[in-house]
Amino acid sequence: MTIGDFLLRRLEEAGIRHLFGVPGDYNLALLQQLHDGGTLEWVGNTGELVSSYAADGYARLNGLGALLVTNAVGSLSAINGVAGSYAEHVPTICICGSIPLRSVDRGLGMHHTMADGNFDHFLRAYAPVTAAQARITPRNAVVEIDRLILTAWREKLPVYMELPSDITYLEIEVPSAPLVLAEPPCDPERLRSSIDAIAQRLSAATSPAILVDADAARFGVAADLMELARKMQAPLAVINAAKSVIDESFPHYIGIYAGRGSEPGVREVIESSDCLLAIGYRPIEVTTGDFTATLPAGTIHARGHAVDIGDDNYQAVTLKEVLRGVIETVPQVTTRPAQPVAALATARESAPATAPGARADGSATLTQAAYWQAIQDYLRPGDVIYVDNGTSFSILGLKLPPGCTFIGSINWGSIGYSVGALLGALTAAPERRHVLLIGDGSFQVTAQELSTILRHDHKPAILLINNGGYTIERGYIGKNEPYNDVANWSYADLPKVLHPGAPVRSYVVKTCGDLQEALAAPNDRLLFVESIMDPCDAPAAITRSSNLGAELDYGPRGPQHRENLQLRPGAM
Amino acid sequence: MTIGDFLLRRLEEAGIRHLFGVPGDYNLALLQQLHDGGTLEWVGNTGELVSSYAADGYARLNGLGALLVTNAVGSLSAINGVAGSYAEHVPTICICGSIPLRSVDRGLGMHHTMADGNFDHFLRAYAPVTAAQARITPRNAVVEIDRLILTAWREKLPVYMELPSDITYLEIEVPSAPLVLAEPPCDPERLRSSIDAIAQRLSAATSPAILVDADAARFGVAADLMELARKMQAPLAVINAAKSVIDESFPHYIGIYAGRGSEPGVREVIESSDCLLAIGYRPIEVTTGDFTATLPAGTIHARGHAVDIGDDNYQAVTLKEVLRGVIETVPQVTTRPAQPVAALATARESAPATAPGARADGSATLTQAAYWQAIQDYLRPGDVIYVDNGTSFSILGLKLPPGCTFIGSINWGSIGYSVGALLGALTAAPERRHVLLIGDGSFQVTAQELSTILRHDHKPAILLINNGGYTIERGYIGKNEPYNDVANWSYADLPKVLHPGAPVRSYVVKTCGDLQEALAAPNDRLLFVESIMDPCDAPAAITRSSNLGAELDYGPRGPQHRENLQLRPGAM
Repeated sequence: MTIGDFLLRRLEEAGIRHLFGVPGDYNLALLQQLHDGGTLEWVGNTGELVSSYAADGYARLNGLGALLVTNAVGSLSAINGVAGSYAEHVPTICICGSIPLRSVDRGLGMHHTMADGNFDHFLRAYAPVTAAQARITPRNAVVEIDRLILTAWREKLPVYMELPSDITYLEIEVPSAPLVLAEPPCDPERLRSSIDAIAQRLSAATSPAILVDADAARFGVAADLMELARKMQAPLAVINAAKSVIDESFPHYIGIYAGRGSEPGVREVIESSDCLLAIGYRPIEVTTGDFTATLPAGTIHARGHAVDIGDDNYQAVTLKEVLRGVIETVPQVTTRPAQPVAALATARESAPATAPGARADGSATLTQAAYWQAIQDYLRPGDVIYVDNGTSFSILGLKLPPGCTFIGSINWGSIGYSVGALLGALTAAPERRHVLLIGDGSFQVTAQELSTILRHDHKPAILLINNGGYTIERGYIGKNEPYNDVANWSYADLPKVLHPGAPVRSYVVKTCGDLQEALAAPNDRLLFVESIMDPCDAPAAITRSSNLGAELDYGPRGPQHRENLQLRPGAM
Repeated sequence: MTIGDFLLRRLEEAGIRHLFGVPGDYNLALLQQLHDGGTLEWVGNTGELVSSYAADGYARLNGLGALLVTNAVGSLSAINGVAGSYAEHVPTICICGSIPLRSVDRGLGMHHTMADGNFDHFLRAYAPVTAAQARITPRNAVVEIDRLILTAWREKLPVYMELPSDITYLEIEVPSAPLVLAEPPCDPERLRSSIDAIAQRLSAATSPAILVDADAARFGVAADLMELARKMQAPLAVINAAKSVIDESFPHYIGIYAGRGSEPGVREVIESSDCLLAIGYRPIEVTTGDFTATLPAGTIHARGHAVDIGDDNYQAVTLKEVLRGVIETVPQVTTRPAQPVAALATARESAPATAPGARADGSATLTQAAYWQAIQDYLRPGDVIYVDNGTSFSILGLKLPPGCTFIGSINWGSIGYSVGALLGALTAAPERRHVLLIGDGSFQVTAQELSTILRHDHKPAILLINNGGYTIERGYIGKNEPYNDVANWSYADLPKVLHPGAPVRSYVVKTCGDLQEALAAPNDRLLFVESIMDPCDAPAAITRSSNLGAELDYGPRGPQHRENLQLRPGAM
């Protein structure tokens, strides 16, 4: 079997059905093999940065994603998105059609390189941002291809593979057995002891609770956690990076924990728990209310492949098996006073997601408050909801209907990510409704990828806020400074330029009535809604968070305290 | 003086007047200092990749360029362009507003990082693609800022600087003397001996010649080389990466040398020279006719800071001083038979740049042959001419009028580069006419930056070929395969979406007459000409080069020989 065909076969066996990327001089032979093979579908992008975002979005729904780029100019264009997958724990495989081995052997200068005959530079650049890297050769192909795919899948991290252009058509001996995506078995004693230790502590506790980070989704244990919460009658909170990982209509779900930025009551439940089980918890400033989160002493930390309980660290265990064991071991609780949890859940139900009075009359100029109230009403069960950086982070405060998936980039936070992720996740799950929430500044980075979304006849709802720039940054520094302004585009006209004749429903919205009309449109075509709002109108939670962020980032000597240099909550 | 103000002062002293980039949480304090200072101008981009291209284009005309991005998501988005500056020997300074030192000290997890409390990943990613890197601290700021700027300028390579967000407003003691961009003095003996050795060999030769690579432009010695050629009555050729470095109307200029891909007669002159002086020569496959270039034995290699003559290697010398010494030392030649050189020059003058008969009548469908004939006629003295990857490489075969500057990326070859470079060089030299030659596939990568070009009221001529995809790749592999197709945009309508109401002259061209009319438009506004041509119409030189490239890249087992899988010259 040829090396290229073997790689494509392995990708397919790993559940990958689509490859994102951009053709280039060094990857065309593999592209031809892909085309001839017919099992994987090629989704060409307008640029490689978007390919990396698309592979990430695809992986979040599909379990694994991949992109194919060309040497250096392609792989370095994609590196920000691949690094983002690392920060967000998303398994992707970045395949770089690279310099022929002939040139590597001879040290020949080639284009798409430093022209110095050294071809290791880009493997080195990728080393800090991927879990594994390799240059494929005929002698290592079988071992390395399997190692890289398995590493990505097991670690839930991206990997980087250079495939020299002159070897894809060379034949090698390959194993006939398919690649099996599986964890190696746990160490039986470690598994048993960790399960016993967790179960014992949870059972003995009077106020056990569970705190969930994004790894619960990556390692596929959300349903197990809900089962555990149900059996223990224990409350379950998420951090914002894990929005929607636990179905928000689940009775034991109490909301987002973020230290002083927590939803009402959640902080008390989590911080006063006498046995908190934290799943993959990675505290950073934006997930902890600027480091005000304080988990109780004795918190159990369960991660993908390890458990920390007090002084004990358990290796050679997997999260899934640990949780299955704990669920089996803990007794069914029926006597736990349901009051605090139920009260919280009820409070959440009845609390308006946004300020009261936000529902204005139709002719009123659209405000952020009214906008987010309308978005809350727009969401439907089963939606895939994307957020890009900016005031769109307001989605974190809305209640998602059952079965929704939230796709965001809380740790990495690269503007423009969501447009690529949208294409990727649309490709993975075209049957679901996809709703993108994005601002103008973020959209401008990757706007042209709308072209690919239209080319493949996808029908997402793209809800864009046109407020003249980086409003979230105005809350850090530069409330009215021109560096936070972006050019004003005719956003709603862009679809017809990028795909002439496309059946798109485009709206420009200035009032609450306009918005109501636009959001009433059916989702039988791509819906593009440009909502024009004031640059200094921002949800108070966003602005407060920016104000606090400025303190952390710029310190006591920073300019954020100067008169009128920082947007403040309710400043409009 | 504060660290931020000191950095801005040093940039200004180094001749930088504009900073490209994107605002982000960690660079706003410096942006505010820039805004308050008023000496540097901020040019915000739609994304950081374009910022790196813009800084590169700016540096090519200005001598040094800089960009300001935010931690990780910004710096990694820019890394492809910065690495390209390395490959092309362009000095740029990538300044990354990074994680506060407070968080570095405490190992705190922050957004825009891997969320692991390790902040060295991105310095490590930048190490292989820059000449120097540093994280600025209050204690190293004076030393490191000067070191990085000087290194970029002296080495003609990019550097990477992380400026933690919480120190820009801290005060440090700074030197009052301005930064002087200068080389350290040469070692006197080494300088004298290298000059003598070169002069002696050139004087003794009967057919001396000069071969110029792009470093001649970077180190500012083009005029010196012309002076030397004049004094020696010696022919002077360039490699394609140095197109326009030597004024093409200069009497001793004979054309492009590229082994078997050379212009007529040039190969003979260069390869049979009994004393060839090569300036910064870096042979790679696309500059050497696929390694068919063979410089004569005994070729003298002069580089930015070293000279190689036979067995002798001279260090501690600079190209400029070596050349000045050689010019002074060699005798004025009046007796050299001018025949071969003059004949070549005359031949070039009279040879049509494209095939005879290319000038078709007005109603004829536009072909590549007719297009490049029209472009030849369109060029004017003093133009800045940009080429992106694709059939636009045909510009290499045209004769540029006096005083033109060619901006391309022959070694690195990243598609989309030229749009960013255009913005950068427009910013550096707004008074010149700028002509961009680009195809649809390249344009789609960075198209939105047109918005910034229009926002700053620039008036370039953008000449876009819409031929449905990556035609240059069709000559490698995939003549008719869909992976080489790109979506069809209404390109000519894009300016009015990206800058509503902009006074743009937009044309869609299908015939020779259409093109003639479009190119007759005055350059008082931005000119955007979309020329529609057949996907399989390509200049023979481009297709031949792609065909040969496929042999190198995919080797004897590659699919390029399969029936009808590769576009061949004259195939349309």
